[in-house]
Amino acid sequence: MLSVDEALKIVLAHATPLPPVRVALGDALGCVLAEEVASDVDSPPHDKAMVDGYAVVAADLASGRATLRLLEVITAGEVPRLIVEPGTTTRIMTGAPIPAGADAVVMVERSSIAPDGRIALDEARTVAGQNIFRRGRSLVRGQVVLRPGARLRSIEVGALAEVGRGEVQVVRRPSVAVLATGNELVAPSAMPDPGQIRNSNGPMLVAAVREAGATPVDLGIARDDVDDLARLIEAGLAHDVLLLSGGVSAGVLDLVPAVLKSLAVDEVFHKVNLKPGKPLWFGHKVAGTLPTLVFGLPGNPVGSLVCFELFVRPVIAKLSGRCDIAALRVSATLTKPVAQRGDRPTYFPAAYCETNAYRRVEPLPWQGSADLATLVQANSLLVLPPGDKTYAEGEPVEVHLLGN
Amino acid sequence: MLSVDEALKIVLAHATPLPPVRVALGDALGCVLAEEVASDVDSPPHDKAMVDGYAVVAADLASGRATLRLLEVITAGEVPRLIVEPGTTTRIMTGAPIPAGADAVVMVERSSIAPDGRIALDEARTVAGQNIFRRGRSLVRGQVVLRPGARLRSIEVGALAEVGRGEVQVVRRPSVAVLATGNELVAPSAMPDPGQIRNSNGPMLVAAVREAGATPVDLGIARDDVDDLARLIEAGLAHDVLLLSGGVSAGVLDLVPAVLKSLAVDEVFHKVNLKPGKPLWFGHKVAGTLPTLVFGLPGNPVGSLVCFELFVRPVIAKLSGRCDIAALRVSATLTKPVAQRGDRPTYFPAAYCETNAYRRVEPLPWQGSADLATLVQANSLLVLPPGDKTYAEGEPVEVHLLGN
Repeated sequence: MLSVDEALKIVLAHATPLPPVRVALGDALGCVLAEEVASDVDSPPHDKAMVDGYAVVAADLASGRATLRLLEVITAGEVPRLIVEPGTTTRIMTGAPIPAGADAVVMVERSSIAPDGRIALDEARTVAGQNIFRRGRSLVRGQVVLRPGARLRSIEVGALAEVGRGEVQVVRRPSVAVLATGNELVAPSAMPDPGQIRNSNGPMLVAAVREAGATPVDLGIARDDVDDLARLIEAGLAHDVLLLSGGVSAGVLDLVPAVLKSLAVDEVFHKVNLKPGKPLWFGHKVAGTLPTLVFGLPGNPVGSLVCFELFVRPVIAKLSGRCDIAALRVSATLTKPVAQRGDRPTYFPAAYCETNAYRRVEPLPWQGSADLATLVQANSLLVLPPGDKTYAEGEPVEVHLLGN
Repeated sequence: MLSVDEALKIVLAHATPLPPVRVALGDALGCVLAEEVASDVDSPPHDKAMVDGYAVVAADLASGRATLRLLEVITAGEVPRLIVEPGTTTRIMTGAPIPAGADAVVMVERSSIAPDGRIALDEARTVAGQNIFRRGRSLVRGQVVLRPGARLRSIEVGALAEVGRGEVQVVRRPSVAVLATGNELVAPSAMPDPGQIRNSNGPMLVAAVREAGATPVDLGIARDDVDDLARLIEAGLAHDVLLLSGGVSAGVLDLVPAVLKSLAVDEVFHKVNLKPGKPLWFGHKVAGTLPTLVFGLPGNPVGSLVCFELFVRPVIAKLSGRCDIAALRVSATLTKPVAQRGDRPTYFPAAYCETNAYRRVEPLPWQGSADLATLVQANSLLVLPPGDKTYAEGEPVEVHLLGN
């Protein structure tokens, strides 16, 4: 049986970053840039005032004081028309272009209006260049601001706006369809009859896809019926990834593998050596312009979540063009003993805690692979290698942080 | 002038968690739960099979082998009708209810069909309870699964689905309006004329609001005109928070404070002792059912981002009912010397790096408060206290991590 590392390697080998698309800047947050972006302007575009005040010839204030004739008042968006010559000044505000002739700005707090209506300035520290921010000091026209591969945060959105990008080329956000399968499933709002359970995997996986930065498409529940499965799986194959929940173990009505085959989805592997999550199925459909990667996730909630974290989240990151594909794994010390039994590496729901000096992890009381009630207390999975062993309090163990 | 800590304390004192609303489970991701949620079912709802296989009377396999008559085949969603008595078996799949009479399940891999059509089982380890998961072991009806205050991740969405919550009561997601002000501003897609600059703060703040988990409402650009400002600010006051960018320093056309006053928005403070970001304005409108908090952010991009991080992000967290309101601050050692000048604490864009043992921070070459081109390389702000001092390589400094 494949190990987790071998299976992940195979899965990632089937995924390549999606082609670039042009999107409105407002839709680019969280996406990965797919073009080099250079500035089309100098920033600032002109020598500009760093304070509200009076543009002057610095030499006029050699004594620390001057009374000057007001030429004009420049407000935001206006440009100075008159040349500041010795004995004159122009009122400008923060960010305004420095008028020709001026070589310093005196803060408005240092000004008053003289009895004759002229402007009295009192600023001993006035030197040429004072309170002026030079054209192109932040950014020169043609300077590269962002390179392909940058993940766009709010800061990058601001920088793209500054250099004129109302639209931007990004790696397309993966579209991920989610389909729960099984006659026993009912919607969360329904009360299950005997033999039925609620579809918790569907809503959980839709939310996990959104958390991972992809666009989820909820296909609902497919019944254990070849026609229903084929219709919904075909709809799912229109997306970059199709997540199936349930229907891939060895039950009598586990029809999914046969239906996938009939729709030209090739099996790549079935079963991985881990607990929970062993029945994982992975395949792909190559036909059409872009392949669809298909995961058959275990029907039990914890196995489904573990497989999502270990295999689907990294695939979404790679398809999205991100460089942070590997999950965050750290070493921590156990705060409680934990017993490992059996020949499969085991992922226990755990509470990880980091202080300034220590990394500690507490295994949570876990009732098995259906136990979402324990998982709600977890922020991590404690990873124990195969082999019967009781790990003692204080032993170092590996921890997989959830949602990273 | 208020210190950053004093200002933050005042800002947070004006914010209380928003009232609860009922939302569809699919819209609850990232929200904070506003009710206690108990399970309305036992989970599992019946003793269930943990493997695909045959339900048996364990005593039949005392010798390790048995050949049994097949009673019926139970598929997903079906319930067993017949009682398993000694000498008989029922085929069930993973998750199916255990038929009455049976007390163990033998894996299908341990079965074959005997020449007479009966089912031959070969499993030496069969004991009562084998491969059976007891009713209510994960969750008992009435058991509390989630408490108010829980932030809903994909796992919690799955748990809510399991206990029947197609809708759930959550703290309302804050609605945050963003309005850039200034005659000098043009849209990102336009080429600025002399004296004009592009509106980079608007798109940046809209994206930052979304990153912080609130719903942004982009009000575009208001001109330095009382009527235009009043119309757009009034629209902004319909939301929980209004972010104004620009228009709060001492420029000739800085009309914003007067317009806010005319719309019954009370000033709480103006100016905070920090760099960049000193001109921050904060006020609130109490009239109506819910107050609106109003921030006048500096017009320069870095000052605007710093004020968002220090004051707006915590307010959004508090309004959202979250408990992680405080920003993540760590101590790190400088990788390069950095000079601090002046009487204001300074927030330098910086690159923070954490290895298993060390926390290091590199100050980035920073051209002043308009410099988004440097900020795109930053993941943190290096915080230096007031006072002229050159900090040496290796000195410990405080670091504010961005986006936490």
